[in-house]
Amino acid sequence: MIATRHQIRPGAYYDSVVLMQLQRALAGLPGVVDAGVVMATPANCELLTASDFDLADIAARPDDLLILVRAESETAADGAMAQVDELLRQRHAPAADYRPRSLRGALSQLPDAGWVCVSVPGRYAAAVANEALDRGRHVFLYSDNVSVADESALKRKARGNGLLVMGPDCGTAILNGVGLGFANRVRRGNIGIVAASGTGLQAASVEIHRLGGGVSQAFGAGGRDLKAEVGGLTTLQALRWLAADTATAVILLISKPPAAEVAAALLRAAQTCGKPVVIHFIGYPPPGRRVGNLTFAAGLADAAACAVALTQSPIPQSQTADLQPLTGFVRGLFSGGTLAYEMWLGLQPVLSPLGSNLSPPDAGQPASQAHIILDLGDDAFTQGRLHPMMDNDLRLRRLRREAADPAVDLILLDVVLGEGAHPDPAAELAPAIAEATQAGRRVLVILIGTDDDPQNLPAQQEHLAAAGAAVVRTVSAALDYVYDRLPPTAHGDPPVSFAAGALAAINVGLESFAESIRAQGGAAVHVDWRPPAGGDERLMGILAKMKNQGIGE
Amino acid sequence: MIATRHQIRPGAYYDSVVLMQLQRALAGLPGVVDAGVVMATPANCELLTASDFDLADIAARPDDLLILVRAESETAADGAMAQVDELLRQRHAPAADYRPRSLRGALSQLPDAGWVCVSVPGRYAAAVANEALDRGRHVFLYSDNVSVADESALKRKARGNGLLVMGPDCGTAILNGVGLGFANRVRRGNIGIVAASGTGLQAASVEIHRLGGGVSQAFGAGGRDLKAEVGGLTTLQALRWLAADTATAVILLISKPPAAEVAAALLRAAQTCGKPVVIHFIGYPPPGRRVGNLTFAAGLADAAACAVALTQSPIPQSQTADLQPLTGFVRGLFSGGTLAYEMWLGLQPVLSPLGSNLSPPDAGQPASQAHIILDLGDDAFTQGRLHPMMDNDLRLRRLRREAADPAVDLILLDVVLGEGAHPDPAAELAPAIAEATQAGRRVLVILIGTDDDPQNLPAQQEHLAAAGAAVVRTVSAALDYVYDRLPPTAHGDPPVSFAAGALAAINVGLESFAESIRAQGGAAVHVDWRPPAGGDERLMGILAKMKNQGIGE
Repeated sequence: MIATRHQIRPGAYYDSVVLMQLQRALAGLPGVVDAGVVMATPANCELLTASDFDLADIAARPDDLLILVRAESETAADGAMAQVDELLRQRHAPAADYRPRSLRGALSQLPDAGWVCVSVPGRYAAAVANEALDRGRHVFLYSDNVSVADESALKRKARGNGLLVMGPDCGTAILNGVGLGFANRVRRGNIGIVAASGTGLQAASVEIHRLGGGVSQAFGAGGRDLKAEVGGLTTLQALRWLAADTATAVILLISKPPAAEVAAALLRAAQTCGKPVVIHFIGYPPPGRRVGNLTFAAGLADAAACAVALTQSPIPQSQTADLQPLTGFVRGLFSGGTLAYEMWLGLQPVLSPLGSNLSPPDAGQPASQAHIILDLGDDAFTQGRLHPMMDNDLRLRRLRREAADPAVDLILLDVVLGEGAHPDPAAELAPAIAEATQAGRRVLVILIGTDDDPQNLPAQQEHLAAAGAAVVRTVSAALDYVYDRLPPTAHGDPPVSFAAGALAAINVGLESFAESIRAQGGAAVHVDWRPPAGGDERLMGILAKMKNQGIGE
Repeated sequence: MIATRHQIRPGAYYDSVVLMQLQRALAGLPGVVDAGVVMATPANCELLTASDFDLADIAARPDDLLILVRAESETAADGAMAQVDELLRQRHAPAADYRPRSLRGALSQLPDAGWVCVSVPGRYAAAVANEALDRGRHVFLYSDNVSVADESALKRKARGNGLLVMGPDCGTAILNGVGLGFANRVRRGNIGIVAASGTGLQAASVEIHRLGGGVSQAFGAGGRDLKAEVGGLTTLQALRWLAADTATAVILLISKPPAAEVAAALLRAAQTCGKPVVIHFIGYPPPGRRVGNLTFAAGLADAAACAVALTQSPIPQSQTADLQPLTGFVRGLFSGGTLAYEMWLGLQPVLSPLGSNLSPPDAGQPASQAHIILDLGDDAFTQGRLHPMMDNDLRLRRLRREAADPAVDLILLDVVLGEGAHPDPAAELAPAIAEATQAGRRVLVILIGTDDDPQNLPAQQEHLAAAGAAVVRTVSAALDYVYDRLPPTAHGDPPVSFAAGALAAINVGLESFAESIRAQGGAAVHVDWRPPAGGDERLMGILAKMKNQGIGE
């Protein structure tokens, strides 16, 4: 005769380790079949229902603590429930050594602590992180269920003071060889990592270690850092830190796909950082495999492999002599649709606005304004007319128009040789290219052809170059050309700094995180943290007002 | 005193080479400043306007031929226009040798011709292609401006008869070493190419040649082949042809991103084709760098480099002993969000429907149905509870539920070791894994950790394996595991075949294409094609009805 009992404790705060231990203790009592100790979120309730608990008549709210017992008899069920308070008391037994109750107290005990690790429940986390910033410490914010508004406010405040906020929902970091949160023990080395999420960083660092490489520093940014609301603040800070770090030779950047404007800022920062950067935006269409100093990886294991390979054989320096940054618009006049599309795709993250007449983008907009990539072989142009690979008339007209536009800096052309194509495209294009370069435009030609093609590849190349065009052989090389000339991004943020050597941190929340810092040779003081006002929301609000310590706007 | 003149010739058909020559001849006449000879499409009119022609008072329709002259004087302008008919007559002078006027006539002259190249204007192209199919010939359809409905009908008809239709808007193919349309002269070799678009194929084949590799055959499919309406018919036929071809060691597949359902069919076909396949879906988020026999490239140059590298060092055979194809659903129960996301991304093209609680996909749908990837570390599950890396309770409950579901074949788990994580996850998971495998489920564990991690990696691995789990170390390897077990795709299409040796083709349209086939050592007969009924739409309709030769439904 199965019997079930439940208790609801509204809005009560318990450490989640304590709750796990309570559930295990209850489940281990004689006659008890199963026990559940959870916050009554819909996901947790759905799961308990699937585990044969009947929650139909239980009216618990998501922030209520729900304690359930299913036992073989009424007596066993009642007996188990009667022990709940006693079990909770046991788990709350004070530690033998003295533990500070506040961040202030902990910092007086370990004044060198540069970092504060926060893993208290989400609704308390922003306030703790804010206090850490006020005390001039970097924050490792493990807690989840923190609002985007709080995240943005914390990060803006941190940035203004040369401080880092990793997280919220930052599972992992490795600083000076010591892992925070969940972190694998990996070799120290010359690969610096910035990752949004915890397991992405873990999987990549493990794979780097497996491949014989090592990690200089690994920063977490939190899963939402690259969203438009946050703007990649932490990722950009970490990227700049690694760019300046002499121990870091290669940077690895891992994240879910960023918001478009954040991706642009990030790629620009990465492109101008002076080191090879491997980028793995999971599920993001890569603009190429290697573009300038950027390598776009597909998969965590691939990202790690690329990073390790780059530490062994660095990317050769760009061969291009003239590296004047772009000062005007880029206009691409393509005869090949796929070449145009690949060029558009590669430039799209870094040039904005970038128009095109390509499908799917914004078809049928061939106006010359801002940056634009045109496929002049598109149906709209070729009806009743030869393809631009055979008939250059259309391109020549367009080329002269772009050449006359002082807002244009760079004109991109493809010249495709081979059977069926124009017998001497360079002869037709060269005069217009010369006009353009004399008018102050730069012209870059992607010359597609083989040494066996009927047009005589070297002669074509020479003719185009003599007219003043830079000539490359692939879209990839053309992207390199543009990326190498992106204007540098400016920022006036104070630099982030932290002490080298053994890591010292204050830990607020899950005690095991303090233990693992010590196990790795770092120093950690754990705060015996309790929620303000015993977790009572109303009282907390009053206290916060009294302290006048609110973060955000 | 600048003078302009124009003529409109409604619905007239002229070969586009003739029109180009007319424009050049007019522009070269004494006193003429510029000339335009175009079909009056909006794009062409916009361009002429930009070239200082005033079209404001000219009421030409898109399928009208528009002839424009701008000259230094009234006399010169009138003089030029007076010569239009004479210039057109010169260009229409009959060739010295006899040329058949019909496909039938051409085929009686070159009965071995296996291919018909069609480059007549779009509105006539489907009928010519259809006749070629009726006569049992493969079609290279260069023409653009052909409707999707016609394309689909032509390709369905072709497939039913073991014939290929490359195109419409197929710029390039290389068959038996001879390029059709626009094609570069490249070394013959063991890389087979299927590409949607012309210049993608050209750029990749040029790069293969530059890297020392060579091409067995290169098929074009047309830019719309991978759209849902067409269903990738030609690409699938070409892929199967290359899979069966003994001269082809590596297959390269290039296209803009396919429709989702077409991508699935294509990846399944590629995965089971028995050869390494390099895939470059331009702008498509790659599910990994290498998944099973598939390599996902980023960029045309990268795609070529991958293909050449694979001819030199083939992918090692899968190490997994048990290769039973999947017969039920895949259920992933992840503790790591990024691992879950990467797994979801990798499986998404091949398992359908594939649910998840990941953002951005379909957040908050943790129901167990069909294939599903769950992130149990999501905020919805972790409120007030330890992360599943520390507390396995949630996963154990879910695992037992999946184990009891006979519709499930494969359960995926990640086990993440390291600081902060559970001290012995294998001990907790192993009993439930053993239950699952005894119930007939397969369990695959992605074990993330290093040899320095506190949990003892080899012991964890051994414990999990002893419980019946297959253990891999990366998401990439887990994707391999699944891809290697995808059920083979069945198709009952008759095989496509064509004669080896020198290529023989009939050419209808641009004469230069016939010339270039001959220049490459192939045989070609050019048809002196004229549109039926002189291009008169109404008469054409009547003729078509009389012939009762319509294609389509």
